[in-house]
Order: sequence, then C-alpha cells, then structure tokens
Amino acid sequence: MIVDAAKISRFSRESFTKLGMSEEDADTVTTTMLEADYRGIHSHGFLRLPIYVKRIKKNFIQVPSKVTVEMETEAMALLDGHYSAGQVVGKKTMEKAMELARNHGIGMATAKHSNHFGIAAHYALMAAEQNMLGIVMSNVEPLMPAIGGAEKVIGNNPIAFASPTAEGDPIVLDMALSNAPLGKILFAQAQGKEIPKGWGVDKNGEATTDPAQVLDGGFLSPVAGPKGFGLAIFAEILTGILTGSQFSKSIPSMYDMKEKQSISHFMLAIDLSQFVSGEEYGNRIKTLTSFVKESKKAPGVDDLYMPGEIEFERERKNKESGIAMEENVLQELYQLSDELGVSLKEVVLQD
Amino acid sequence: MIVDAAKISRFSRESFTKLGMSEEDADTVTTTMLEADYRGIHSHGFLRLPIYVKRIKKNFIQVPSKVTVEMETEAMALLDGHYSAGQVVGKKTMEKAMELARNHGIGMATAKHSNHFGIAAHYALMAAEQNMLGIVMSNVEPLMPAIGGAEKVIGNNPIAFASPTAEGDPIVLDMALSNAPLGKILFAQAQGKEIPKGWGVDKNGEATTDPAQVLDGGFLSPVAGPKGFGLAIFAEILTGILTGSQFSKSIPSMYDMKEKQSISHFMLAIDLSQFVSGEEYGNRIKTLTSFVKESKKAPGVDDLYMPGEIEFERERKNKESGIAMEENVLQELYQLSDELGVSLKEVVLQD
Ligand SMILES: NC(=O)c1ccc[n+]([C@@H]2O[C@H](COP(=O)([O-])OP(=O)(O)OC[C@H]3O[C@@H](n4cnc5c(N)ncnc54)[C@H](O)[C@@H]3O)[C@@H](O)[C@H]2O)c1
Ligand SMILES: NC(=O)c1ccc[n+]([C@@H]2O[C@H](COP(=O)([O-])OP(=O)(O)OC[C@H]3O[C@@H](n4cnc5c(N)ncnc54)[C@H](O)[C@@H]3O)[C@@H](O)[C@H]2O)c1
Repeated sequence: MIVDAAKISRFSRESFTKLGMSEEDADTVTTTMLEADYRGIHSHGFLRLPIYVKRIKKNFIQVPSKVTVEMETEAMALLDGHYSAGQVVGKKTMEKAMELARNHGIGMATAKHSNHFGIAAHYALMAAEQNMLGIVMSNVEPLMPAIGGAEKVIGNNPIAFASPTAEGDPIVLDMALSNAPLGKILFAQAQGKEIPKGWGVDKNGEATTDPAQVLDGGFLSPVAGPKGFGLAIFAEILTGILTGSQFSKSIPSMYDMKEKQSISHFMLAIDLSQFVSGEEYGNRIKTLTSFVKESKKAPGVDDLYMPGEIEFERERKNKESGIAMEENVLQELYQLSDELGVSLKEVVLQD
Repeated sequence: MIVDAAKISRFSRESFTKLGMSEEDADTVTTTMLEADYRGIHSHGFLRLPIYVKRIKKNFIQVPSKVTVEMETEAMALLDGHYSAGQVVGKKTMEKAMELARNHGIGMATAKHSNHFGIAAHYALMAAEQNMLGIVMSNVEPLMPAIGGAEKVIGNNPIAFASPTAEGDPIVLDMALSNAPLGKILFAQAQGKEIPKGWGVDKNGEATTDPAQVLDGGFLSPVAGPKGFGLAIFAEILTGILTGSQFSKSIPSMYDMKEKQSISHFMLAIDLSQFVSGEEYGNRIKTLTSFVKESKKAPGVDDLYMPGEIEFERERKNKESGIAMEENVLQELYQLSDELGVSLKEVVLQD
C-alpha cells in the first residue's frame, strides 16, 4: 500500500518529541527514515520506528541527545554520542568532518557510543551538498562469518561515498557488505525459489541455495567472499577499533532488547574547492558520467546507471505518489500510536 | 619452476639502471615486483618486467624518474609523476601522505602522470610500518562494462587497506575490483571448465559461464555487480577525476604500445599515535583477530584468515624456497637479457 509521507513523518516527529527528544533531533531521525523510504530502501525507513521507540523507552537510546567532542587533533576528531540516536550522532559527525575539511582540506571525524544510524548515503550526501566528497562507514552487530567460518564475527557494515556533480543529482554509492540483505532471502523463501550461490551459508557454514537453510541458523555471506569480508574488517577497524567502542562479537543485537549498543561511525570529507575549481571538477564528472551512460548496452537493457541514480529516480517518483509500506509495518505504527497517545489517521493513499 | 629470487632481482635492477633509472628507483620497482611474486601475486611480479622495459624504451615510462609536488594545502597534496615508473611515484605519494599525517593526524596525497604501480598492498604496508593506517587506490585502463553494458568503461581499480598489529604481520586487504582476474578465466578455459556466473560477460554484455565467450571480445565483471562497479567508479573519482589526469575511456591500454598512459593514485595515511596509544590499539586488533580466527569453522575448514594472512604465509615460504615462475616468463627474461646485454644465469632452482 501507499501511505502519506507527510502524515507518517509528523507522527514520527511527534512520537520522538513525546519521548523527550528535541524537535530538531526528532526531525533529524525522521528525515533519515523518510529519505530511506523515498529511495526505496524500505529496510531502513519507517519500518525502524517501532524498534527505535522500544529502545528509547529502555534507555538504550538516550533522550534528549547529547554529543560531545572527546578529542580533536588538527584534521581528526573523535566524538562521543553518549548513546544518543545514531542519526543525530551521524549528522554531528559529518558536520565535524566538514568543518575540519574546510580548515585542512580533508577532515576525518569518528564517533563512539552511537546507535544504528539508518542509511549511510544520508551522511555522505551532506558532504556532496557542500561541494565535498563524503565517505561514510558504520559498524553494526555481527551478522556474517569469516571465510570458511560458521559463527557470526562481523557486521555487514555499510559504506557510502558521495560526489557532487555540475548539474543534477550527486553520485552516491551506498551499500551493505553482505551479498544480499536478509529481506531478499525471506522473499525467495516466500516464493519457493532457490537463492544464488554466495548469498548465504547454512548453520554449519556450508554453501547452500536453499533460503530455509540460511534462515534456520545460517548466515549471510559477505559480498564477493574474501573481498567483502576484508572490506567489512577494515570498516570495523575504522569504526569500533579506532574509537575504542564495541566491535565484532562484543556488539549485542539491536533486536534482542537485552542491552545498549555502542555503535561507531567513521566519516571523511574532502573539500574539493581546495583541490580543483568547481567548474573543472563538474566537467570531469560530466565526462565520466557520459562515458558510462552512453556506452554500448547489452541486448534488452534500456539504461545504464551511475551509482545512486536508481534511488534518485525512485525518490522523485515517491515524492509525488507517496511511500510504499507493508500492511504489517503500518499495523505496528498504529499500535505505537495507541501506546504513545500520538495521533495517526487516514494515512493510506492507495491500497 | 622455482627460480632464485636474488638473481632475478639483480637482473631486474641492472636492467633498469642500464636503461637510465637511478639505483634507488631501480630498487624500488624491483622490490615491488619481488614482493608480488613472494606473496603469490604472480600477475604483478617479474612477469611485468618485459612490458616495463618496452615502455621505458618507447619513453612511455620516463627515466630518470622525476616526481614533483604540484599542489599542497594543509593535509592534502597533488604530486606530478612526470610519467615516471608507477612504483617510484607510488612510493613518493605514500611518503607525502605520511608526512602530512604526521602534521595533521590524517594526510591525503594523490599523484597524476604516473604509470602502473604493481600491487597496491605495497604502499598501504608502508603506512602500517609507521604505525599508520594506509588506504591506497589507483586507476587503470578500462576493463569492465557498466551494469548491463557491453563496452569497457571502468578499470578493475585496485584498493588496499593496511593496519599495524601489536605483534606479527600487519592486516592488509589488497584487491582488484573485478570479480576474477583474467588469469583465472584463462585457467578455466585451459582445463575445459565452466566459470561461475558473475565472473564475466560475452561480447554482447550477456552473462555466460563459458570462459571462451569472455575471452573472445567479452569482459570481466565487477566484483558483486553494482557494488564493485560503484567502488570502481569512486576509486576513479579519487584518482583520475580528482587529479585531472586520464580516467575511464581516456586511458589507453598498457599493452598496445601506442601511447603514454597517465595513471593516477590516491593514498591516505592516518597517524594512529595521535588517536590512541599503540598498546591500546594493538590490544583491540588482537581481540578482533582472535574473534575471527577462533570462531567456529565449517566442516573441512582448517583455518580462518584475516585479510593478507594467506599472502604473508606464502611470502615466508617463498623467501625460503625461491619464487615460482612460468617457463614462458623466464624465456622472456632471457630474451630481455640478450637484448639489454644484462647477464641472467643459472636462476632455476627447481624444475
Ligand atoms: N546502518 C546500518 O547499520 C546499515 C547496515 C547495513 C545496510 N545499511 C543500509 O542498507 C542500505 C541497502 O544496502 P544494499 O547493499 O542492499 O544496497 P543495494 O544493493 O540496493 O545498492 C547498492 C548500490 O548499488 C547501486 N546500484 C544498484 N543497481 C545499480 C545499477 N544497475 N547500476 C549502477 N549502480 C547500481 C545503488 O545505487 C547503490 O549505491 C544502504 O542504504 C545501507 O547504508 C545500513
Ligand atoms: N596496479 C594495478 O593497476 C592493479 C590492477 C588490478 C589489480 N592489481 C593488484 O592485483 C592483486 C590481486 O588482486 P585480487 O583481487 O586478485 O586479490 P585476491 O582475490 O587474491 O585477494 C583479495 C584479498 O582477499 C584476501 N583473502 C583471500 N582469501 C581469504 C580468506 N580465505 N580469508 C580472508 N581473506 C582472504 C587476501 O588476503 C586479499 O587481501 C592485488 O595486489 C592488486 O593490487 C593491481
């Protein structure tokens, strides 16, 4: 079904402020979820509102938010998120990286004691909007085994890169380091289909094309085996290891509701204006884009895309039509509405 | 066959100095090839000596080398390699990144007008040796199509990350952004075997498991499809686009011997000592490593590895036994020996 983005967003903001978040921070978290739904990344959209609320109620996510600078040395900084919402910490982290980049050409900011920050693209795009290159990583609870392993040791840590362009949308790559998200495996199972080799392994760590074997105690596999595993390890080094926060098996699950998580982020901003004129850079990016988009296509292929282009197309469409939402997600939001006493009405635009 | 590393190395150094390279630079290029062969990355070992020599003779690679700093702004720099050997430019680039990192915590150095620099790990490891994190990228002539494309638009741009450890070898990820190197596809063909889906496409850009279809006008595929493609695009942005050098389809082939290449590199160094004590960092890395290595294994799996570990094991073994070399590679070196009048004798240790 298609729901009214403005109404759901208002509900989200009001839920957070009711729980003690400032209006500004409630807006920050809401905007990030809305952006995810607009971009068709529904796994990181309003579907996450109920778990965030649950964790705020347990004081696993702290409100009101507090973010302090623990250490700053020339072009590097370490922020302490004091267990605030990941989106609030993430935004402050990229703001700090950009401030450092303005002064030193390049700026690196990391944050510890944070939480799940949603889609990594959001923070990388903040840099692109300021004519900077943005690089963003986060760690996340362990979901994948080592190569040949049969136990979760590393998250499918998200990585995003964004670049401004002369005209039109920025270029943005945003990806998890697992081969396929859990959602796609659930979908294959529901359809009674096999999954491609490489998406996951069974509970013994053995390759399987049966989605049920992955779901029943098995594991997601890193994208491209050792390469994705290695990238996930380095994302972990740049986040949990560098900041002295939780990493790998020391990160508890977000959904088991047993304890606080202490997630960390790594953000890098490169101030392009200190390197090359905006016009020149824009022209080069335009040439690269046309090399890609105007290259020969395989039979039956209509369009070739730059990273992020598909999501911007979806965003434009969904801003017109509303956002897609599964029935059960909406039911959970209604339940939340009762629980919190925050009104949520007439949101369905299309069944 | 197994050959004598010292004799081949001497031959390599003498060949380069005979052609006008300084002893120091000849040693730099030789060391990088030797390291590749030691690590079992034979595609980037002495196999490349003949093509480097050919390109030096054509003045496509300039000797003696010259590397200048074109621009430096706080924590960022752009070097001009003046078409010198990529290994010489690469080394100077990482040295500059480390110098900037010492002063600003993080340092970014890029280089333009360079050449093929061999294995990316070499430069990342320079940082790890100085208790820094090293990140290295290079662009390379286009080898892969866009997703759904049937024309080469992007290189299988190499990326490397290295981290120091408290004891033992550094952790180092070093990878090309194609799913499989050409060598593995040639090998499958020679054995009459199919290749896994995703390794390459045929000349029309259509998926194939027949190695011959990939080799006959087809293309290598990016690692993990859109994710590897996106990473390759961002490696291109951080190298060719940022430095104002050649990028994508404007880079000519190294092997067709028609013109100079103008390759670029991107290197980042993060001075860990400005962030965390060496002891503390070492302890965290040790914990991460033991989480990975001591996790449950799939049946039949003997060992779980951290990135780079397999190559360090090979290196230790090969330093004892000598390096493996294909018969035809050795023949080419003998031919070179005749051509240049540089002696190469009794190098085979084991047939
Ligand atoms: N916060 C967290 O802990 C966390 C953890 C994991 C994932 N995530 C988020 O999950 C989201 C989904 O990740 P994913 O790996 O499933 O993404 P995906 O596989 O849908 O897309 C990966 C990238 O490929 C690009 N792409 C897709 N098709 C393309 C084509 N044909 N040509 C060119 N480019 C193309 C997309 O633009 C995107 O940048 C991301 O937003 C990520 O940040 C967050
Ligand atoms: N200069 C250039 O233009 C250029 C271009 C392309 C590639 N290269 C070089 O080619 C080389 C080969 O690249 P590749 O992609 O074929 O590498 P690869 O696939 O052999 O290895 C990729 C990475 O995976 C790690 N790895 C492998 N097995 C593992 C396991 N079981 N557990 C954990 N980690 C594991 C390795 O340590 C390595 O870091 C690299 O050195 C690269 O720099 C250079």
